[in-house]
Amino acid sequence: MKLQGPRGTRDFYPKECAWQNFLLEAWRKVSVRNGFEEVDGPFFESLDLYKIKSGEGIVNELFHFEDRGGRELAIRPEFTPTLARMVASKANSLQKPIKWFCVPNLCRAERPQRGRLREFLQWNCDLIGVDGAMADAECIFTLVDLLRELGLEPQHVRVKISHRQTVRTILTKLGVAEDKLLTAFDLLDRRDKMDADAFTKAASELGMAPEQVERFEQICRFRYPCGSLAQMCEQTGLDSLHELEELDAQLQAFGIADWCEYDLGIVRGLAYYTGTVFELHETSGAMRAMAGGGRYDKLIELFGGPSMGAVGFGMGDVVLSEVLADKGLMPQDVSPRPDVFIVATSDASATQVPMLTASLREQGLHARFSYKTTRNLGKLLKDAANARSRFVVILDDDTPNGQVQVKDLQTSEQQTVAIESLASHVALA
Amino acid sequence: MKLQGPRGTRDFYPKECAWQNFLLEAWRKVSVRNGFEEVDGPFFESLDLYKIKSGEGIVNELFHFEDRGGRELAIRPEFTPTLARMVASKANSLQKPIKWFCVPNLCRAERPQRGRLREFLQWNCDLIGVDGAMADAECIFTLVDLLRELGLEPQHVRVKISHRQTVRTILTKLGVAEDKLLTAFDLLDRRDKMDADAFTKAASELGMAPEQVERFEQICRFRYPCGSLAQMCEQTGLDSLHELEELDAQLQAFGIADWCEYDLGIVRGLAYYTGTVFELHETSGAMRAMAGGGRYDKLIELFGGPSMGAVGFGMGDVVLSEVLADKGLMPQDVSPRPDVFIVATSDASATQVPMLTASLREQGLHARFSYKTTRNLGKLLKDAANARSRFVVILDDDTPNGQVQVKDLQTSEQQTVAIESLASHVALA
Repeated sequence: MKLQGPRGTRDFYPKECAWQNFLLEAWRKVSVRNGFEEVDGPFFESLDLYKIKSGEGIVNELFHFEDRGGRELAIRPEFTPTLARMVASKANSLQKPIKWFCVPNLCRAERPQRGRLREFLQWNCDLIGVDGAMADAECIFTLVDLLRELGLEPQHVRVKISHRQTVRTILTKLGVAEDKLLTAFDLLDRRDKMDADAFTKAASELGMAPEQVERFEQICRFRYPCGSLAQMCEQTGLDSLHELEELDAQLQAFGIADWCEYDLGIVRGLAYYTGTVFELHETSGAMRAMAGGGRYDKLIELFGGPSMGAVGFGMGDVVLSEVLADKGLMPQDVSPRPDVFIVATSDASATQVPMLTASLREQGLHARFSYKTTRNLGKLLKDAANARSRFVVILDDDTPNGQVQVKDLQTSEQQTVAIESLASHVALA
Repeated sequence: MKLQGPRGTRDFYPKECAWQNFLLEAWRKVSVRNGFEEVDGPFFESLDLYKIKSGEGIVNELFHFEDRGGRELAIRPEFTPTLARMVASKANSLQKPIKWFCVPNLCRAERPQRGRLREFLQWNCDLIGVDGAMADAECIFTLVDLLRELGLEPQHVRVKISHRQTVRTILTKLGVAEDKLLTAFDLLDRRDKMDADAFTKAASELGMAPEQVERFEQICRFRYPCGSLAQMCEQTGLDSLHELEELDAQLQAFGIADWCEYDLGIVRGLAYYTGTVFELHETSGAMRAMAGGGRYDKLIELFGGPSMGAVGFGMGDVVLSEVLADKGLMPQDVSPRPDVFIVATSDASATQVPMLTASLREQGLHARFSYKTTRNLGKLLKDAANARSRFVVILDDDTPNGQVQVKDLQTSEQQTVAIESLASHVALA
């Protein structure tokens, strides 16, 4: 019998857990210095909560179950509905702007595949109660700040930015009727997963002739760096890009233009985005999106709150970890190292181990000890080295009472140290 | 429409989330300095995994569901089965002793009540691969180290310790047959929740006469401080307490005798404990156990691994938080404070806000800014004070280019500072 965890989940042994904590700490550190406050919510919500934003279709993508009272509940597949519920229910008493982040574990009932697991962590940042491009740009800045913190550079990754209104204008010009725009967004978002014929057929049902589909496809292949909106106007045939101009200026003001480009092919499937939308992609394009977000000004209202502007993004841990590993940016050694490893070479000296351990830990030092007592000091030193300890404290019968042998495992220097100055000896080293 | 989270779950707004993080950080810090390494596992496991340890009865206490492939899964109600699975599947390649901790979120399908929610966090520490009382004592020391870290004192809480073998000897002397001992443990564990008649009836079915039940009840009311085993022998009529003697010596050697007492009424319901068992209680006795644990030497084997000694404990966040709040030990102000809050009193100066914010954040400072631009400086300063910022940076039309006004919100001192030395000005303060 070898028991395994469910498919699409992960066991985090100490090394993997240390990597996970490395990401969590980076997310938290960057969120805090960008002025976001951490929140969290229940791990399961009523199933109905998820239908508000995503409709009945979401049910198949959730792990859902009934409680004893027959209430339908579901494990959270995303944090946004919880966020919207929490904001809506206290909207009047919360200080504005609301800048919240969270790092929840989420589950989705999907088929596990590369870059998509059934359980994962997701960093969410949301900025609520502010309209305008400055808030959009601050969210994108926060995302870029994380990328820098992790050692990524503009040549590794790219924030691809679009705007619902721009795409809407283009689609309208290409013949899509107002009442079919949402369907068109959904279709465009799925185009990479459809075969060409099915896509052309669906597009023509929305009122787009083949040459219009081709024209749209062509527009989706254009890439424009920050600061080149005039060129975008020219190539797309649009008169103005009013809705992108202010954002463009803000991205430059925040100094992150070289991380960003406009890509009108970024549509984002979710019907709830209302303005700027963006995705973070690894530059080779071989991997799934590393993060996605945008402006969603109707959501808080949808959950029973007042009308409030909102912009935010989510970033999962799975693709991010793959990209970091791929670029050699996952640190090798993030597990905490012991300051001291205590060993005893005689039964008499071993009686001191608990007292000494307790005293060092109470002084804040990371102290381990060997459960083995043996005259074979070499073996004990090896255990200390395996634990990656900075120092070994050796208790033996030869050292005078009140003193211990202390060996620095990096320099191999050994000294006799009085027990009462042991903690400061180690702390100062 | 006011949407609420499910019963027995919690919304963590920034203040509550900061408290949660305060506990998580204390758990992590203490675990690490006591030499435990962090691990984690899937949020859901196969339903069968939980039956291995707890039998079919556990199913009603779980949130369970099927995946698309018809596999029965359950949200983790505890971490121990995952731990046992992870250890068992890599037992040969893991360095011994295995000292792991984790801080998972867990869910139980029970009726919410004071001190028991349907979702909670639990700190787990487990020490696997070492037999003997020293490991038991190290686990108890780690628990006490956490209590000290949080500011609790021996008069607030008590580690109540018992031993399966001692209780077994007493029960055998009182007439309980060998094959009814496990049932007796279970009955004794539930005695506070049963009415007296039902308990007496069940006890007599196990072979205990009313006077023997009363004698056992009397024994359960005795309390013995560390170092008083001779007295326990005398009062219980046992010839020796061999199994507690070494533990008693170790608890004294670790210097935690004043936190501990022996209480043979601590049985722990779970059939899997094999030796030392302990619970942490608030001294008034009014609340549920704050933590519980013990030695469970058969568990790894039960999950398909080799025979390995093991001892560990779990501590939930719910009762712990109540006790800390009750003692005034929950810190009032654990939310991160901004270093700098940037405001602008003119549209011209406001254009500098993004660049300045970006630069300070890139230098690691926690920087916020006002989305409002107004000549009303008083209003802006109030926003900065509400955000609890240490400094306000004021951008206006009067200060020469390249310089800004910096106000220390604690001292109210205001200075003109060059932009390039702003970060060091704030960092040095």
